[in-house]
Amino acid sequence: MKKISTFGASYKEVEIGDIVNIAIETPLTLECGVEVYNVPIAYQSYGKLNAEKSNVILVCHALTGDQYLCGKHPVTGKEGWWDRMVGSGKPIDTNKYFVICSNIIGGCMGSFGPKEINRKDGNNYGLSFPFITIEDMVKAQALLLDKLGIGKIFCVIGGSMGGMQALEWARHFPERLFAVMPIATSTRQSAQNIAFHEIGRQAIMADPDWCDGDYIKNHKYPAKGLSVARMAAHVTYLSEKMLQEKFGRHLQDGEDYTYGFGADFRVESYLRHQGASFVERFDANSYLYLTRAASYFDLTNGGARKLTDIFAETHIRFCVVSFTSDWLYSSIESRNLVRALNAARANVSFTEIESDKGHDSFLLELPEFDAVVRGFIEGSAALYGIGKNNE
Amino acid sequence: MKKISTFGASYKEVEIGDIVNIAIETPLTLECGVEVYNVPIAYQSYGKLNAEKSNVILVCHALTGDQYLCGKHPVTGKEGWWDRMVGSGKPIDTNKYFVICSNIIGGCMGSFGPKEINRKDGNNYGLSFPFITIEDMVKAQALLLDKLGIGKIFCVIGGSMGGMQALEWARHFPERLFAVMPIATSTRQSAQNIAFHEIGRQAIMADPDWCDGDYIKNHKYPAKGLSVARMAAHVTYLSEKMLQEKFGRHLQDGEDYTYGFGADFRVESYLRHQGASFVERFDANSYLYLTRAASYFDLTNGGARKLTDIFAETHIRFCVVSFTSDWLYSSIESRNLVRALNAARANVSFTEIESDKGHDSFLLELPEFDAVVRGFIEGSAALYGIGKNNE
Repeated sequence: MKKISTFGASYKEVEIGDIVNIAIETPLTLECGVEVYNVPIAYQSYGKLNAEKSNVILVCHALTGDQYLCGKHPVTGKEGWWDRMVGSGKPIDTNKYFVICSNIIGGCMGSFGPKEINRKDGNNYGLSFPFITIEDMVKAQALLLDKLGIGKIFCVIGGSMGGMQALEWARHFPERLFAVMPIATSTRQSAQNIAFHEIGRQAIMADPDWCDGDYIKNHKYPAKGLSVARMAAHVTYLSEKMLQEKFGRHLQDGEDYTYGFGADFRVESYLRHQGASFVERFDANSYLYLTRAASYFDLTNGGARKLTDIFAETHIRFCVVSFTSDWLYSSIESRNLVRALNAARANVSFTEIESDKGHDSFLLELPEFDAVVRGFIEGSAALYGIGKNNE
Repeated sequence: MKKISTFGASYKEVEIGDIVNIAIETPLTLECGVEVYNVPIAYQSYGKLNAEKSNVILVCHALTGDQYLCGKHPVTGKEGWWDRMVGSGKPIDTNKYFVICSNIIGGCMGSFGPKEINRKDGNNYGLSFPFITIEDMVKAQALLLDKLGIGKIFCVIGGSMGGMQALEWARHFPERLFAVMPIATSTRQSAQNIAFHEIGRQAIMADPDWCDGDYIKNHKYPAKGLSVARMAAHVTYLSEKMLQEKFGRHLQDGEDYTYGFGADFRVESYLRHQGASFVERFDANSYLYLTRAASYFDLTNGGARKLTDIFAETHIRFCVVSFTSDWLYSSIESRNLVRALNAARANVSFTEIESDKGHDSFLLELPEFDAVVRGFIEGSAALYGIGKNNE
């Protein structure tokens, strides 16, 4: 078995700029068969852990998210990706809960990922990085919580690929969860979504500056390819209606077509901007590995186990959320999950939220969604006997 | 005004392999302001023109189609793209009608396009090719019919970008048309579709082998970029349901994930194949120009004229067709057109055909669609006083 140790035995904890990470000594055998140990996991926590360690909310981030939920992001300088949801008095209330989010393995914000240095040869892993799955990400998170002395988690919440992680938590560690909230997600990656991710990977790998994954060593960066990948993905995050209402056929400058290949239309300029800003904060190889992990995601392992059997006799409280205009992970996917949970006699609520904003709804201003998150957490907290102000 | 003459004055008609094209001497002023003359138009015709020249059906091809409707394609060796629709006894019956289809200008199958040779310097036009619009394509088709001595057209039919051309025919030459059949199309390119095409262009232009459009001169070809563009577009041609039913999560080889970046899934392999075969038959610069033309398409010229005014008092018989699972040019777009035609008191029928096959439905086996095409043509022909076997 191939074994990878990412830190020396003397490693305790390091700070890279403001990124805090911690070494997980316990070996982790990845689904691909590689065993890793001393794996760095970068994480952030918000709020205070109570004496009983019973007020833990674990947030799982999506494909290109990271551990910075709220406040100013130390790398981008922007607000954390869920600033409107997590904080004092917010639906995920840091006055009451200890909220933790870690950068997924395979990612690029301080956790074990392809841009990290392989201590054996001093180079970045690049394509020598092992293939990881959603299950692996979740197992690494579990080891992080072990290390922090946290046993049971009050609630695991995540949207999109974060929702896949939430579902893997419910499958693998039912005894450690009281409640789970999978948002805008699915129990398996669909053919269409596998296809979209394949396009993104092909765009990156078509860029000669990708250098077969060795761009850092070669002082290059596949910015054009990664930008095209992001543009292609970004369109899938928005609804047709939102694009039409926000951009329509508005021209970027002036009133006439330029008869050129510049960004004549506002939507073209917007997409180019999305691509350009993404390459500044994300690692191309991470994008390859993480989209691969998403394509491999199937809770039923190719139909080997039925969803109903997986969740038979689960004690976890489920709250499944979808958005009407989300065509990437449509409500149908959530309904299939809810149907299986009902058949498994699980405790499940399902909310399909009316929204024109597409898949990205879970990241955007949407009061009804806030109310659903707040309501589920408060109700579950009352049942769990927590949720008082944690002063 | 910039003027481009593509053939010498002595030019009459040439054959490139089996591609027949003809020079249109009449100058054509393109919407971008450039005047072109002696423009080559490659076309194919099927069936016989009757003595009254009254049995003409003009088929307009889509973005990456060409003039070869049926029979064996001389370049690809495959069947023409509408072989199942056009032929003896077929819905567009070549025993009765003279069916003509020309390669759109900007295309790459023998008509005036960026890969053609500029006689002035002996090089391919590349990016010195003028920007063309759907209106320009239609005006060039009209000049071709003039040259062939054809005045009035019995019916203009087209799907997707071919449908845009059909609508431009109805707008610009109402007196020359008896009937028109716009299929799976829209009266203007939506923000989402502008976005998808921008992704394709960015993928091509990101490829260093594109050489700023001069790849032919540099003995290169942006195959990787064009392939990514095609893959990204191809996903939009199919419905989510069709992809799921046809490919699902089936693996290409074996039963286990390879934990690699190869085409693990059948849908990935399929997409790669679509990309690879496309680059063998299509010109990258043509793809840039034609997608640009599509993005510029808006029958109302940015709202300057209402659809209802454009078609006020039209005598053309319209048959508008959409497909339920087409999310690229959804039924909503067709309904908007039909609503405007109704308000304009036009003679219009509308059929939304139940299909799981997405936008590509108009190219695929679909008996109900065949029946709609046959029915509209036969009914219109009876009114027009044609349609008898043309022996």
